[in-house]
Amino acid sequence: MSLKGFQFSVVEAAIKKPGRKDLALIYSEAPAAAAAVFTTNKVKAAPVLLSAERIACGKAQALVVNSGNANACTGTQGMVDARETTRLVAAGLGVSDELVQVCSTGVIGVQLPMERLTAAIPGLVAGLGSATLDDLAAAIMTTDTFPKTAVRSGVVNGVGYTIAGTAKGAGMIMPNMATMLSFVLTDAAVDPVLLTPCFKAAVDRSFNAITIDGDTSTNDTCLLLANGAAGTDTIAADTPEARQFAQLLDEVLLELARLIVKDGEGATKFVEIRITGAASGADAKKAALAVANSSLVKTAFCGQDANWGRIFAAVGYSGAQVDPDRLALWFDDVCMARDGVFAGGDAEARGTDVLRNKEFTVTVDLGSGQEHATVYTCDLTHEYVSINADYRT
Amino acid sequence: MSLKGFQFSVVEAAIKKPGRKDLALIYSEAPAAAAAVFTTNKVKAAPVLLSAERIACGKAQALVVNSGNANACTGTQGMVDARETTRLVAAGLGVSDELVQVCSTGVIGVQLPMERLTAAIPGLVAGLGSATLDDLAAAIMTTDTFPKTAVRSGVVNGVGYTIAGTAKGAGMIMPNMATMLSFVLTDAAVDPVLLTPCFKAAVDRSFNAITIDGDTSTNDTCLLLANGAAGTDTIAADTPEARQFAQLLDEVLLELARLIVKDGEGATKFVEIRITGAASGADAKKAALAVANSSLVKTAFCGQDANWGRIFAAVGYSGAQVDPDRLALWFDDVCMARDGVFAGGDAEARGTDVLRNKEFTVTVDLGSGQEHATVYTCDLTHEYVSINADYRT
Repeated sequence: MSLKGFQFSVVEAAIKKPGRKDLALIYSEAPAAAAAVFTTNKVKAAPVLLSAERIACGKAQALVVNSGNANACTGTQGMVDARETTRLVAAGLGVSDELVQVCSTGVIGVQLPMERLTAAIPGLVAGLGSATLDDLAAAIMTTDTFPKTAVRSGVVNGVGYTIAGTAKGAGMIMPNMATMLSFVLTDAAVDPVLLTPCFKAAVDRSFNAITIDGDTSTNDTCLLLANGAAGTDTIAADTPEARQFAQLLDEVLLELARLIVKDGEGATKFVEIRITGAASGADAKKAALAVANSSLVKTAFCGQDANWGRIFAAVGYSGAQVDPDRLALWFDDVCMARDGVFAGGDAEARGTDVLRNKEFTVTVDLGSGQEHATVYTCDLTHEYVSINADYRT
Repeated sequence: MSLKGFQFSVVEAAIKKPGRKDLALIYSEAPAAAAAVFTTNKVKAAPVLLSAERIACGKAQALVVNSGNANACTGTQGMVDARETTRLVAAGLGVSDELVQVCSTGVIGVQLPMERLTAAIPGLVAGLGSATLDDLAAAIMTTDTFPKTAVRSGVVNGVGYTIAGTAKGAGMIMPNMATMLSFVLTDAAVDPVLLTPCFKAAVDRSFNAITIDGDTSTNDTCLLLANGAAGTDTIAADTPEARQFAQLLDEVLLELARLIVKDGEGATKFVEIRITGAASGADAKKAALAVANSSLVKTAFCGQDANWGRIFAAVGYSGAQVDPDRLALWFDDVCMARDGVFAGGDAEARGTDVLRNKEFTVTVDLGSGQEHATVYTCDLTHEYVSINADYRT
């Protein structure tokens, strides 16, 4: 990977269990144009409140992130600690506090162990350049089982650039703005006017289209930094280069979002829910999310049970307009139901075969219009219950 | 139980596995004043469509109900079969088809085995008087582990009357009108003007305040028959007798609703979620349902993990107005958090002790007003996954 002008560092600050990296730093050698999307949860973690305040200037140069503790529901002390963390990092780097973003992920409601963070930050800053994006991806994991990164390359006037992203998240995942932590870095120079709308659109098509358990976190943050270190001309809005950049950004975010679902807590199936024939785009998304979040549908996926009736029930209560007599449903290309009733023949056996795969698509036509939406989800398994019944203990 | 003027019958029609009763009949010796509440799911089962059409006249004399097959997503044939079932019952009883209600519960998307129903109905009618309400409660079970009944007695001008109810349901339970099957019978004479509003209010406070898995069924039906056989004066609206009747009806429905949650698929905990300090009643209910439906909260209950942060996260994304700095939370009488942060002291240990009980209350104050709401729910367990991953197989 040839991402220019960014350096990484990771250390063990003893926030998580011994032997696991839990504090990471991203540093851009020059201030970068920045855009971010934060959780819509009304209970926002301290780092979310602080980072949202700072991103307003459209610039950032560093990001410090810890795993193992969410610094959420921590009140005034939480804000003090988030500020102090960025102050220590800014002092070490010799940059303004305002250019330092901060993220936390982990258990809610416990104050940060500031003495450990304070002790670890000098080593974190000193270590810049010693870690890779993969190291960073590993350091931000909580219940994730593998680190998640995605990389694409583009060209502007003959000069190449890179977009590299990382993400974490395996539970408390439900689309409502960015639904986990994701950091996307590019060495392209991008007009700030283009950056934010382009990023928000990409987030909507990726992180806002996945759901594991329907729970929206207090800490979700998705951050994009563009530092221009590749030496490209600045990518301006409404140009072919802008469209290429948007496409590549979409690809990076969608790849990361899919990795999050594949690493869904306890997941054994990756399922793409496609709704067609909806009266509106909003209806399509409502119906897709109802199916993707239904415990009964998700346990049927787990059991490889071609129980399409549960899916019709879910679109029925989703709030979307549906025509019960025109509903149709496919598992991959096997039509299970048409005109609201079972398709007959060998659909049951062939549908069950589809559900034996690790990845498949469920398509539901609502028979009510021309709009569509896609959402990615996973199954609900014993392992999900085990992970979440025992997470803190 | 001294419920007058109603007779019951149950038979084995081979819809469920051998050895299990699966067809039941309730018969009122005289036409009864009737009220009903049906699912809000847009995909409605054939029996729901037919019964809703018929209840408009405000009278019913019989109810035929089968378990093992929902007769949902069965199209025109499903309607034909529902009508034919009631025609056969009406002919056997010598009453008008229009006075026969019909309900089905079980697997979605499979046509009713009409030859078996046709063969079984003469015996069903002939057997009237041979079964008890408990027999009926057992015959309508699907994944339920115990039959559910509740009984109360009242008095009007010195004449006693009885309200007796039964319900079934353990999965696909989520409040949005009646969320399972429930039949409530009274031998009081009740003014039809009183009956429907009184019943709907009772349903809202009971069946519409429980959730097991957030899934709203295609078949939910809650039916009330008042046949006057006790010989009471007719209970008129806005009288002390009406208020007593409403209170007793509330009690019967709430008892049945609580039994459904206690029999929640795989449930090991019965949890009352109380929201206080809400800006509106609607906000209070939204917040209560978000907590009650959160997979992360429900798995924490399962693990007896006093993870109150997940509950704050749930109210935060519920859509209700919350003041993050004034949020407070109790497990029974143990204050876990106040002013948005951990209460400190020995709250963790004492809160964990509460969660070791089979029943407990979670109270969340949103710090935003004076309104409140209560919802009943259960935990999410391995057993829930087992039951629903393997239900059909």
